[in-house]
Amino acid sequence: MARATPASGEDSLIARYFRPFATDPGAFQLDDDAAVLKANGDDIVVTTDAIVEGVHFLSDDPPDTIARKALRVNLSDLAAKGATPAGFVLTLALRSADEAWLQPFATALGEDATRFGCPLLGGDTVSTPGPQMISVTAFGRVPPGKMVHRSGARPGERVMLTGTIGDAALGLAVLKGGKIHAASDVAARAMLVERYRVPQPRVALAEIVRAHASAAMDVSDGLAGDLAKLCGVSGVSAAIDLASIPLSDAARDLVARGVVALEALIAGGDDYEILCAIPEDRVEAFAAAAQSVGVAVSPIGTVIAGTAAPKFFDTEGREVALERLSYSHF
Amino acid sequence: MARATPASGEDSLIARYFRPFATDPGAFQLDDDAAVLKANGDDIVVTTDAIVEGVHFLSDDPPDTIARKALRVNLSDLAAKGATPAGFVLTLALRSADEAWLQPFATALGEDATRFGCPLLGGDTVSTPGPQMISVTAFGRVPPGKMVHRSGARPGERVMLTGTIGDAALGLAVLKGGKIHAASDVAARAMLVERYRVPQPRVALAEIVRAHASAAMDVSDGLAGDLAKLCGVSGVSAAIDLASIPLSDAARDLVARGVVALEALIAGGDDYEILCAIPEDRVEAFAAAAQSVGVAVSPIGTVIAGTAAPKFFDTEGREVALERLSYSHF
Repeated sequence: MARATPASGEDSLIARYFRPFATDPGAFQLDDDAAVLKANGDDIVVTTDAIVEGVHFLSDDPPDTIARKALRVNLSDLAAKGATPAGFVLTLALRSADEAWLQPFATALGEDATRFGCPLLGGDTVSTPGPQMISVTAFGRVPPGKMVHRSGARPGERVMLTGTIGDAALGLAVLKGGKIHAASDVAARAMLVERYRVPQPRVALAEIVRAHASAAMDVSDGLAGDLAKLCGVSGVSAAIDLASIPLSDAARDLVARGVVALEALIAGGDDYEILCAIPEDRVEAFAAAAQSVGVAVSPIGTVIAGTAAPKFFDTEGREVALERLSYSHF
Repeated sequence: MARATPASGEDSLIARYFRPFATDPGAFQLDDDAAVLKANGDDIVVTTDAIVEGVHFLSDDPPDTIARKALRVNLSDLAAKGATPAGFVLTLALRSADEAWLQPFATALGEDATRFGCPLLGGDTVSTPGPQMISVTAFGRVPPGKMVHRSGARPGERVMLTGTIGDAALGLAVLKGGKIHAASDVAARAMLVERYRVPQPRVALAEIVRAHASAAMDVSDGLAGDLAKLCGVSGVSAAIDLASIPLSDAARDLVARGVVALEALIAGGDDYEILCAIPEDRVEAFAAAAQSVGVAVSPIGTVIAGTAAPKFFDTEGREVALERLSYSHF
């Protein structure tokens, strides 16, 4: 059944590494079987995303970046739903209780929990002989009925996007070596790898999305595929201007030199940017509000009527067919 | 980065198998990035427990029993906290999208969600080359401030326990072959294996625990160790009468014949029974209320003052030292 230990190894692991920053009163210092989340009259928005070794992070990624990514991919979902963070629970599937890994992991997780106002409420630790996995369920708050949905986009609205697209996919390619690694200088490599390892969740944009967006989602499985999902659920289509898709200098340079195709970048995963539909008369206010919290937003096209897949156009107005839309696990 | 698929395999997997029973309005038919949980003035109780292939279930366990166990271990936690189920989210880490496995898994999960009034609100599916893992975060409701804690047990209170102890550990031993398998008849083996594979969460007892218990937790890592945890957090000790620990006929028979020691059973895991401290003047009402919902409860000892580990006494009143207290992952 088990190894003999007078005190449970799992309990002392949780106590040692995670209790110091489980300071929310509802976490009961991780001393109980469950936590309490007070809704205070709000709706509780619930999202869950797991990251798996070899898929969402690499075995030799620094543990602090793995911790940050595990939480941030969930914070990204909350922000896209217009929800302000309220807390999270954590499931760690680890091969061993290795202090050299756990200490920086826990410290970074605690730092991000504080930075984004999303306290650790509880967790479960299990052993696995296989790839390590970190699963987070995160909670946010919105006023009743005010969660921003994928559905709700209407023809004529502007399709808008935060940040830049494709950097994380390029960062993973850099880590794997090959032509993108070879074609990038040291600074570009470092930036792209950082974008893969540590997403920047647009938490500051949550209330602004809630105030202005008709529909929103976070881009995690590739812009093209995620836009198709948003359009599908909204019962609309979209016309996207490929040249207006925001790219970092490093990505733009790689595309310009023909090292990578723009089409590959918009099908790459791990962007964790917010894609949303904004009514035309709110575009200016949305952009100004986003700028006021330091988040760049770009218009990339228009919601159009119809149920066809979104169309992508080049600078000459020709439609560009995409070979694939998104990252898929199966 | 990924295999090319025009429609995301993960999305269609979720749609195909899980949407049919994601009928709660807050689940948005699994078409969104997040779910909404309405608190309706209650406190939301949050618990998370994962089950891992090779640890909490075996590779050749039937998929329907794996689904039930994944949800039920969490329902057990909620019941012990006095919380009525409100919903759950699911993370599936699978090696492949195998229909012959997924269909019975999803069907059984849907049945249990309905049976226990705990709707699926959302989920995440990831691929893993390693052991499969199912992580559930479950939500329950209690009136504000009314969650039952591990702390709160006071000297003089009765230590009480639902159901029987040790069957699941014996069931796992049966599945692994060896002396317990050899010493059991077919009916006993079937019962013990069923107890390992499909716990019986004491959901019906949630409100009764809330009404009567000073402290409670579910027994999942071994009675002895879990009691030590409850006592530790409560700042008390306990005196337990080994002969009063409830055993099934099959377990009692194996102990009587010397095949297994009682001490091993109370350190075994996977019982998913409720351990609680009941004030003396409420013991009768608690037992009667439990009986009225068809749950057997047994007094097994007394909470005593002190901070020593709980003591276990045999029928002659001699203290029995335990070699190990509980199942431990690390």
